[in-house]
Amino acid sequence: MFASRLRLVSTRLAIHGIKPFAIKNAIKVVSTAHISRSYATKSGKQVSYTADKFPGYVRNENFKKLTEQDVEYFKTIVGENGLIYNNEDDLFAFNTDWMHKFRGKSQLVLKPKTTQQVSEIMKYCNQERLAVVPQGGNTGLVGGSVPVFDEIVLSLQGLNKIRSFDSVSGILTADAGCVLEVLDNWLAEKGYMMPLDLGAKGSCHIGGNIATNAGGLRLLRYGSLHGTVLGLEVVLPDGTILDNMSTLRKDNTGYDLKQLFIGSEGTIGVITGVSILTPHRSKAVNVALLGLNSFEDVQKAFKQSRIELSEILSAFEFWDINALQMFKKHATPKEVMQNEYPFYVLIETSGSNKDHDDEKLTTYLENMMVDGVAEDGVVAQDETQIRELWSLREGFTEALGKEPAVYKYDISMPVPKIYECVQDMRQHLRNGGVFGKDDSPVTDVVAYGHVGDGNLHLNIAANRLDSRVSELIEPYLFEWVAKHQGSISAEHGLGVAKNEFLGYSKSPVMIKLMKTMKNMLDPNGIMNPYKYLPSS
Amino acid sequence: MFASRLRLVSTRLAIHGIKPFAIKNAIKVVSTAHISRSYATKSGKQVSYTADKFPGYVRNENFKKLTEQDVEYFKTIVGENGLIYNNEDDLFAFNTDWMHKFRGKSQLVLKPKTTQQVSEIMKYCNQERLAVVPQGGNTGLVGGSVPVFDEIVLSLQGLNKIRSFDSVSGILTADAGCVLEVLDNWLAEKGYMMPLDLGAKGSCHIGGNIATNAGGLRLLRYGSLHGTVLGLEVVLPDGTILDNMSTLRKDNTGYDLKQLFIGSEGTIGVITGVSILTPHRSKAVNVALLGLNSFEDVQKAFKQSRIELSEILSAFEFWDINALQMFKKHATPKEVMQNEYPFYVLIETSGSNKDHDDEKLTTYLENMMVDGVAEDGVVAQDETQIRELWSLREGFTEALGKEPAVYKYDISMPVPKIYECVQDMRQHLRNGGVFGKDDSPVTDVVAYGHVGDGNLHLNIAANRLDSRVSELIEPYLFEWVAKHQGSISAEHGLGVAKNEFLGYSKSPVMIKLMKTMKNMLDPNGIMNPYKYLPSS
Repeated sequence: MFASRLRLVSTRLAIHGIKPFAIKNAIKVVSTAHISRSYATKSGKQVSYTADKFPGYVRNENFKKLTEQDVEYFKTIVGENGLIYNNEDDLFAFNTDWMHKFRGKSQLVLKPKTTQQVSEIMKYCNQERLAVVPQGGNTGLVGGSVPVFDEIVLSLQGLNKIRSFDSVSGILTADAGCVLEVLDNWLAEKGYMMPLDLGAKGSCHIGGNIATNAGGLRLLRYGSLHGTVLGLEVVLPDGTILDNMSTLRKDNTGYDLKQLFIGSEGTIGVITGVSILTPHRSKAVNVALLGLNSFEDVQKAFKQSRIELSEILSAFEFWDINALQMFKKHATPKEVMQNEYPFYVLIETSGSNKDHDDEKLTTYLENMMVDGVAEDGVVAQDETQIRELWSLREGFTEALGKEPAVYKYDISMPVPKIYECVQDMRQHLRNGGVFGKDDSPVTDVVAYGHVGDGNLHLNIAANRLDSRVSELIEPYLFEWVAKHQGSISAEHGLGVAKNEFLGYSKSPVMIKLMKTMKNMLDPNGIMNPYKYLPSS
Repeated sequence: MFASRLRLVSTRLAIHGIKPFAIKNAIKVVSTAHISRSYATKSGKQVSYTADKFPGYVRNENFKKLTEQDVEYFKTIVGENGLIYNNEDDLFAFNTDWMHKFRGKSQLVLKPKTTQQVSEIMKYCNQERLAVVPQGGNTGLVGGSVPVFDEIVLSLQGLNKIRSFDSVSGILTADAGCVLEVLDNWLAEKGYMMPLDLGAKGSCHIGGNIATNAGGLRLLRYGSLHGTVLGLEVVLPDGTILDNMSTLRKDNTGYDLKQLFIGSEGTIGVITGVSILTPHRSKAVNVALLGLNSFEDVQKAFKQSRIELSEILSAFEFWDINALQMFKKHATPKEVMQNEYPFYVLIETSGSNKDHDDEKLTTYLENMMVDGVAEDGVVAQDETQIRELWSLREGFTEALGKEPAVYKYDISMPVPKIYECVQDMRQHLRNGGVFGKDDSPVTDVVAYGHVGDGNLHLNIAANRLDSRVSELIEPYLFEWVAKHQGSISAEHGLGVAKNEFLGYSKSPVMIKLMKTMKNMLDPNGIMNPYKYLPSS
């Protein structure tokens, strides 16, 4: 059943006396689209409020409490159907994150349909000192897009129109509320693609991606949003519309203000429109999976892939056997390889010439086998198998979400340190008496991530929430990361989960300047309060 | 003398009855390294002062005038040999830009060797209200790096050490005063390269590149500095050292403050250190030159190159016959092609596999010839010919510099508008009576640029400076660009040349916010005054 490409690999590898690459069985497809929606429809009874769960949060009494008059005023802007008010069930999905880790108490969701409406809402909220949480697809992991207390939720889901596309330059302009996957599919018909991709693509908004500076699976190849976002339309806290919707690749006229909003997590403005550079969709895409014996080998495979696959390399992801076992526990896939290995890497190539790419990949894989770097490998033979391999990588988050409790961390550091961090954490938890015995609360420490970006997703699964565990992890892990010049949040952002730990990644001078910036743009502090920056 | 690659092209093209590509004669190599130095050593007698040449500039009397005591204090920081004081000849190169268009009257150049020294200098200048111009390689084109009046020149040339390099991730950290070409050559030995390249590479500093957000020749492939710069060390106007020297590809912890300094032209701080992501140096580089009949064909060739050359395309430059003739006038090259054509495009590919790249390029060139898009073409056969073709493209600026007068513009706009702009300007100057007759001041209108970035370098050569010409060009050109959603400065920046025209590219809301930002970071306004932002 193998295509000619695989046979080529097999023949060539056979010369070296090595068994051919083979997919033993097709693995089960786990759709990752609409994860947040399906999670969000769970009953909310058991979800604790953020303010109860994380001690130290006190409502800022400078903020006005919402009145009936306010609601009536908002109706004049968005209409009767443009808001959700005082309806616990309907409000639940907006008050809670999809992992059910954070929960706010908002009584009002506003759903404007135009930038002008967003502007009118913000102007009023600023005058009245009503606190606001901008919300996109609500797929974040750090509680940044849900309220802590009674902040008004400003949902961008009504701003969902594609504005323009230039097929010569590949520049797309769109409303902030467009769903990432919708944009990507729309571009596919034109031979282009979004420069970013992530597991939550079926629900997340492009505006939210930019507000959180989402990294994801294509960053290795297409770079960060700081490079690909060409322009933004932002409503400032006082309602001013900042029109910086440039559709130019080059524009050196003044401070690049839009950059401030990329990764600002809704604390200094509401992103309403986006101009972004989209790459050509590659004609040829290959995905291979390797089994390896050590993280040393993972690094060797990465270094060599940068040389041999170079310009066609579009992803280099890794996971450990614990991640695979976690996936199997909840998704029962069939076997991908005959044996299990301590480490796996998923390699994707994207190029314009299938024959050339096949040859490069074959040579690379052959070298990895001959050099003893990889122990086994499979190459996807068609679109379906490509999706299957990817859904394995993208399924870890969902699988972990089915555990009774999970402590999630998203950190970055120099590549050689990545797995040292994981092993150190396992030992630390064992030493602390919460891992490794039958009655230990911690059941597993699972690692996966983007090798090329030095980005580790570290997940500590537990059979219950236990203060001993969290006290052992934090701030120990952040200290470890800081010691190795890493970041305590590589791509998930700060939200309410990490703001008080910012000092581990940024100097007092940096934090002071950030606060000055925040105060300058949002003097009343109404934008996404209690988050992002440390309170003291 | 042709290598097998060319023979392959010839044979295949011969099947279509098309003459083979051939370089008729090697063209003369014009070294572009150290342009600024050689220019700067010219006698300065004829160069007018900026304040005399551009009316409306008045010295800000809030700034203190330099005293002997100040100079003595600076000696305690940088030592006797770390400054140039009251020596007209030695000061000349720091007071004047290399095009001899701008000239200041500074009496003092400071040459600190460490970030700490820069900090002490700025702290003192801020306390004493002494205005400062940070200066890198002084290769800019808009007068941003030379004083207007008596501002102190803070030269970064003493901060020229490479700090570190990580050969797994390709992340380089270096002092701001490192020369771009020096860094590129240093990286070459390690198999890496700088993500940017420009004609002035032999003199320009990486700090200056970042302060001006330099674009250049590799932007099409490797993106802008907003994506590749990972961290900066900046001395703020009050002397505070902002340490944001991250060496991480992903770090989502707070506002990305370093972005503000990229393209800020020394108005809010002095960049002293840089962390930058460098790509692998490609094993295979090809350069081809095409002759075409129309700008329509240039666009067709570009669009097709994005599809067929895709991931290996690393440059797509164009020029018109006027640019070629200007080059010939001053550099007397031999013929590259038998005939002359209205347009030329230079295409560069960079990849990891020579055979694959040759095949892609051959197929592309063949298609361009068969489809009648290109009229003729040559492919460089070795490193020397690659450099020759590039030095043609890079030589236009130098050639134009030898004209009695030249009005230089650097604008960006949607690709289809690029040449319309040139033709419109020619007609406009003819209609205005300054071009097209024997005694017209304007002798030629020359165009070249980066097609892939929508970036046009428009040069109006004249036999003398004539106020009729400048009044016809400005603001006419800026209005034209604004009408087509372009930028009045694509990559050269604002400096003193364009600050008063900022309103053509940025809205009042944007300009107001920029000024707020400037006032917040530099409340005394001592950093690079009279520039960048409009005065009113």
